[in-house]
Amino acid sequence: MKVYKIGGNVVDDQAALETFCREFASLDGPRVLVHGGGVAASRVQELMGIRPVKIQGRRVTDPETLKVVTGVYAGLCNKNVVALLQSFGCNAIGLSGCDGNVICATRRPPIEIEGQMVDFGAVGDVTAASVNTELLEAFCGMGLVPVLSAINHDGKGKLLNTNADTVASSVAAALGAELVVCFEKNGVLRDKDDEGSVIAEIDPGLFERLKKEGIVAEGMIPKLENAFLCLRNGASGVTIRNSSGLDNGIGTVIKL
Amino acid sequence: MKVYKIGGNVVDDQAALETFCREFASLDGPRVLVHGGGVAASRVQELMGIRPVKIQGRRVTDPETLKVVTGVYAGLCNKNVVALLQSFGCNAIGLSGCDGNVICATRRPPIEIEGQMVDFGAVGDVTAASVNTELLEAFCGMGLVPVLSAINHDGKGKLLNTNADTVASSVAAALGAELVVCFEKNGVLRDKDDEGSVIAEIDPGLFERLKKEGIVAEGMIPKLENAFLCLRNGASGVTIRNSSGLDNGIGTVIKL
Repeated sequence: MKVYKIGGNVVDDQAALETFCREFASLDGPRVLVHGGGVAASRVQELMGIRPVKIQGRRVTDPETLKVVTGVYAGLCNKNVVALLQSFGCNAIGLSGCDGNVICATRRPPIEIEGQMVDFGAVGDVTAASVNTELLEAFCGMGLVPVLSAINHDGKGKLLNTNADTVASSVAAALGAELVVCFEKNGVLRDKDDEGSVIAEIDPGLFERLKKEGIVAEGMIPKLENAFLCLRNGASGVTIRNSSGLDNGIGTVIKL
Repeated sequence: MKVYKIGGNVVDDQAALETFCREFASLDGPRVLVHGGGVAASRVQELMGIRPVKIQGRRVTDPETLKVVTGVYAGLCNKNVVALLQSFGCNAIGLSGCDGNVICATRRPPIEIEGQMVDFGAVGDVTAASVNTELLEAFCGMGLVPVLSAINHDGKGKLLNTNADTVASSVAAALGAELVVCFEKNGVLRDKDDEGSVIAEIDPGLFERLKKEGIVAEGMIPKLENAFLCLRNGASGVTIRNSSGLDNGIGTVIKL
């Protein structure tokens, strides 16, 4: 079993998305796709006069923002990805956490950040234990390919917004699957401007050194921390790679 | 097998929706729910500065409108309904036509209306033959309750907007199921201001007389035409009734 993750930059770029979907559809074997959509969500928020608020890279989800991300992630992005996959012959089925209770999340309580209490709003925390693996395995057994948005529910009628990387790593850990994180770069790069400088393998020791040297910085830090957590929680492997050329073997393998 | 349909007025009224979902969750047996969402879609369009355009009650779906209705119907409305049903113990699964290829629609070609060619845009025509009954039956067999939005796909990567009444009647006809059309009134009323004046049964002969007398008018005409079509195409029965009090036996039964 493999779990693929594509981020908001790929979902929002129709050409990159079509390339990914064509290649993903041609793969064999049971697999799950998890997608983001943050780029489109921020654009829709601005169209509607809502200023996106992020703290430590996480979107604060007030009631109006929840409506936008539910529409954009679970509706617009999810159904576009599924319709594209169907057009390439992949029998995809779009799911949010409420669907068949596939992921039941816990609303994040207000937490202290830099001395201030921060309420992220309708944000849902998810772990491997939140994932209904029986349903995902049953669907894969029927030849269906689950495509998960990062909108989940709390089991009490409320929808919650979860980070898509967290959903992907929780699903991979729960299934004991390999996680393939796909984005717009070829992997973790030694030189961010040189797509040829992919670091083939990163373990926790190298991660610390790369952080100290400033080679791994900003958004790549939580991505790698998430990858280590995913391996510790039961995933069979993690690779970070480009969303195109899925069979070219290029990418960064994460090891414990 | 029963197919229930709720319209945009119920979906948009949180109290009415919760009442419906609580009652629907307590029903036994295999069933499918189809929902609208037009009230919310028009509101979002206006927030985004798009003027909703309807011709003969059907929404003209230009590319921007398609994005809105996909977000609102397949995302916001569908996931809210599913999360509510889950909270009442009903194992609902939200689906749009692309999901598992459950409904494959045909884009409506431009048609002549009152001497003018009208292009409805991304509007999908659906018949009983468009419905993947095997998948719906398999899901019901797994104890899942499919909840369908009216967003479908063309099998070539494009999403299409279909009238929710048409989706519901096509699904009921394809499954040979009973269709229960639920809305904010108690049934087809002899006096539109008297909820006690429900007409118990309507056949095509009575329908013609009621139209002549002006008792059946406006939006009720396509609803009844749709009901007769649904019966002719294989549904086992059609009832038009209130979305609350699902077990009270009040409503209008449609007969051929």
